[in-house]
Amino acid sequence: MSEVYRYAAIVEYNGACFHGWQKQKHHNEPTVQAALEAAISKVANHPVEVACAGRTDAGVHATRQVIHFDSTSKRTDYGWIMGINTNTPPAVSVQWLQQVDGDFHARFKARARCYRYLINNSKYRQALQHDQMTWWRYPLDAERMQQAANHLLGEHDFTSFRAKDCQAKTPVKTMHRIEVRQWGDLIMVELEASAFLYHMVRNIMGVLIPVGEGHKEPDWMKDVLDARSRLAAGVTAPGDGLHFVGVRYPEQFEIPSQPFGPLILEPALSLTR
Amino acid sequence: MSEVYRYAAIVEYNGACFHGWQKQKHHNEPTVQAALEAAISKVANHPVEVACAGRTDAGVHATRQVIHFDSTSKRTDYGWIMGINTNTPPAVSVQWLQQVDGDFHARFKARARCYRYLINNSKYRQALQHDQMTWWRYPLDAERMQQAANHLLGEHDFTSFRAKDCQAKTPVKTMHRIEVRQWGDLIMVELEASAFLYHMVRNIMGVLIPVGEGHKEPDWMKDVLDARSRLAAGVTAPGDGLHFVGVRYPEQFEIPSQPFGPLILEPALSLTR
Repeated sequence: MSEVYRYAAIVEYNGACFHGWQKQKHHNEPTVQAALEAAISKVANHPVEVACAGRTDAGVHATRQVIHFDSTSKRTDYGWIMGINTNTPPAVSVQWLQQVDGDFHARFKARARCYRYLINNSKYRQALQHDQMTWWRYPLDAERMQQAANHLLGEHDFTSFRAKDCQAKTPVKTMHRIEVRQWGDLIMVELEASAFLYHMVRNIMGVLIPVGEGHKEPDWMKDVLDARSRLAAGVTAPGDGLHFVGVRYPEQFEIPSQPFGPLILEPALSLTR
Repeated sequence: MSEVYRYAAIVEYNGACFHGWQKQKHHNEPTVQAALEAAISKVANHPVEVACAGRTDAGVHATRQVIHFDSTSKRTDYGWIMGINTNTPPAVSVQWLQQVDGDFHARFKARARCYRYLINNSKYRQALQHDQMTWWRYPLDAERMQQAANHLLGEHDFTSFRAKDCQAKTPVKTMHRIEVRQWGDLIMVELEASAFLYHMVRNIMGVLIPVGEGHKEPDWMKDVLDARSRLAAGVTAPGDGLHFVGVRYPEQFEIPSQPFGPLILEPALSLTR
């Protein structure tokens, strides 16, 4: 019997090119998981299954999705990454990889996840990065959105923001940080929580946007939260502006977690402006 | 006889979704010009032909391509833009439009053009914006590239950077500005010139990259320029990192030209980092 090694990796992908993360049993549409498993199996020389920190929907992007897989093969980190990236389509690539303890698990060991939602708040729709932002043509007030968002900080029952098919055991999650930032026409909402329910960010955006527009007061967020009913909230915002940007693990696993903490970049000014 | 009005517009597009600017006589591949003419003709209610400031190749993007067209139809600026953007595919959109003097011409009245070339200089290839940057995995020295670039400032015969099929009347152009900037792994070269020959930016990059890598000295640029021979230069760099970002016209035409002048943005940090 040969020894089995566990590897963790950080993966970037453009969700517009895939029908979500999860591989499909009965359809042949491309998924991120299927693309990665095919590439990693080729490099490993045996079939490999991949687990991720957070399954993303169709159209949702990731800059720092974390995965793990087991293999009997030994390669250098560089060898794994170059091999995998040679065998994946252009819209998915590995940015970091390292052998980890056998008890690491990309999903179950995650202590916090971070998402960004990007809105192009200009009068006319974007074209160059048309699949990477949500276009909202009516002016949004970022300060009002921040006031509303602040109601979500701390531990809450997030049932009002939970989609029907959600498989989470409990709707109680802790929101560590939620920041609304603006550079010109670009609005970015960054959310860090212990975990997210299915469609939770997009349903939160469905409340923040009417508040930003002035149709609702910032305190509406508290009413929605307290109602513990999906019926109390707004519409589900589109997935194309949603980016999964990082995961935090206990330090012992030594997984890099740069995107966390206060924003240090002035990044997000689009290349197109 | 009805009166004819001339309109100018600023157009953004993702070149990865088109086979270049120019419409094709014998093929059915999508082009930016064909997409715009179809949409504008629909809004105008009669066939419209479009002229642009600078025809771009397959894969090359534009944030501020300038076009003009003639129409007997009168619409508000907002009406034109919303109508056109409703009828173009997601990868092309109009950002500005205004009626202009009948002697305006997007190409012949242009006094200067500006391009950006974006390089993802990280060890592993990008995925989210895979079609918007050129990946160069070997470390580049931006200062060396700037030293080489400085040889191009002023009026020169740019024959060494001119592709075979170039239709320009003269290879003599004036380079007003060429700046190499770096934010983390992202390198941006911005070039402003009176006009550009066919493949000129990509052929300049074919010299700047080996200089940045250290394979060639910065003064090689002067040797290449002086040789007035395409054989003296390097390879043609890929088109996917190339962005057409603006055009300058005489002030009387009142065409906005924001991207020019010294860079005021700290823009280009990708959303993915």
